[in-house]
Amino acid sequence: MKSPISFAIFIIFLFFLVSSAHPGMQRQYYPCKNLVFYFHDVIYNGQNADNATSAIVGAPQWGNLTILADKFHFGNIAVFDDPITLDNNFHSSPVGRAQGMYFYDTKNTFTAWLGFSFVFNSAQHKGTINFIGADPIMVKSRDISVVGGTGDFFMHRGIATIMTDSFEGDVYFRLRVDIKFYECW
Amino acid sequence: MKSPISFAIFIIFLFFLVSSAHPGMQRQYYPCKNLVFYFHDVIYNGQNADNATSAIVGAPQWGNLTILADKFHFGNIAVFDDPITLDNNFHSSPVGRAQGMYFYDTKNTFTAWLGFSFVFNSAQHKGTINFIGADPIMVKSRDISVVGGTGDFFMHRGIATIMTDSFEGDVYFRLRVDIKFYECW
Amino acid sequence: MKSPISFAIFIIFLFFLVSSAHPGMQRQYYPCKNLVFYFHDVIYNGQNADNATSAIVGAPQWGNLTILADKFHFGNIAVFDDPITLDNNFHSSPVGRAQGMYFYDTKNTFTAWLGFSFVFNSAQHKGTINFIGADPIMVKSRDISVVGGTGDFFMHRGIATIMTDSFEGDVYFRLRVDIKFYECW
Repeated sequence: MKSPISFAIFIIFLFFLVSSAHPGMQRQYYPCKNLVFYFHDVIYNGQNADNATSAIVGAPQWGNLTILADKFHFGNIAVFDDPITLDNNFHSSPVGRAQGMYFYDTKNTFTAWLGFSFVFNSAQHKGTINFIGADPIMVKSRDISVVGGTGDFFMHRGIATIMTDSFEGDVYFRLRVDIKFYECW
Repeated sequence: MKSPISFAIFIIFLFFLVSSAHPGMQRQYYPCKNLVFYFHDVIYNGQNADNATSAIVGAPQWGNLTILADKFHFGNIAVFDDPITLDNNFHSSPVGRAQGMYFYDTKNTFTAWLGFSFVFNSAQHKGTINFIGADPIMVKSRDISVVGGTGDFFMHRGIATIMTDSFEGDVYFRLRVDIKFYECW
Repeated sequence: MKSPISFAIFIIFLFFLVSSAHPGMQRQYYPCKNLVFYFHDVIYNGQNADNATSAIVGAPQWGNLTILADKFHFGNIAVFDDPITLDNNFHSSPVGRAQGMYFYDTKNTFTAWLGFSFVFNSAQHKGTINFIGADPIMVKSRDISVVGGTGDFFMHRGIATIMTDSFEGDVYFRLRVDIKFYECW
């Protein structure tokens, strides 16, 4: 390194090095981690106690706790503990549990609000991922927020893209969840 | 660039350049984006099914689903799909929907807890903003957390300052929401 | 500063200076702030209206609003306004309130999901801390997400480690909450 010119080059090199020294900190518009899961919800209807993974626990005045209410289920709150699988087969071996609640919150279309966690305790993943967000069910693909995580997902943030992969009347639905973390730690 | 001195100046210049190369990443105490909205809540009381935008869906043992409960409504959960407007006029054209829940959670004063989303799908804004936080209703101005966003509000975080702009008995209230994003992406 | 060598040293020094110029922004795996609190929950059972700090407000079809339901309380939603203390004594002077909800969401073990805030308004702390996450109650120590804060906890994020410090049947429990902030602003 003999001349000011080579110094300048060196400095500019350092500049870019430093710029990229905070990889998770720059606004990256591509995910630092990407995971796809499915989860399966079977709602209690008064007769399927053994198979049900969720139950209605709140209803508007015109509803009850075994049949989803009129007016697009507006006001029904369901609590769930749903199996998470790697593919879209309900009978696949679960890799974790989706635990939380959803409630229907519109009177003129199917829309829900979600607050839940993915809970993992396997060789592959240990820890939790926490989600909240609006779910306009009739839209093919919709985004909710990944607001935090623990364990393997310590402090992670991101976006989860949800698609209804299947639904059978008011008893069963399956969601595909494409989790894109943009802050990974 | 002929002397070590000019080099030193150049380096110091670079230093500040690099320091400010992560604008969203430094702790900025002024918002990178600021939006003000109003939303309007008309709670179902058994007789206003057409106008109601929210409904009681949970109540304590001493309550019911058409009248807010005694003891400062402690234990009442309401689910809502409320119109968002740019001004404080209930009849203004909505620019989005506020969807989620609130519940009253104190026995000796009016306090609520909020979990909801702003859902936009217009020329001006597309995407969602997700909020949670405590709402001590009797305090003039109170802050909740903006924990995430999608679409135009991808990965945003911030603070929302809420003020009760109007309320009429137990049937109608209007909130002014001043959203200050401090992480904008 | 006479030689290229000393320049190089100076530049390398600057490099590290710049690298550490974003202290909160680098992924730090040690907390920037650490707080420990206890909070105390006395659930309403139909006879303890004066002492109760929480109430069942949602239940599955097989439950009711004064007794926690069969099947590990699956589907019970409770709303709470619990005193926060600095030690594990229920009679200690509260330093704030824990306000929000929990619901039991598993049929074959005790598991809950939490959405709540710590609300402080004292000489020591002013502001709120917002939490969500899965609470596998039978695990000794479990982590939930701190997704935001206001006031003294403006924009903070972190992890809260929860331990059941005491529980007495279905009436009283006390949680120890060890809050570790990793983003402090």
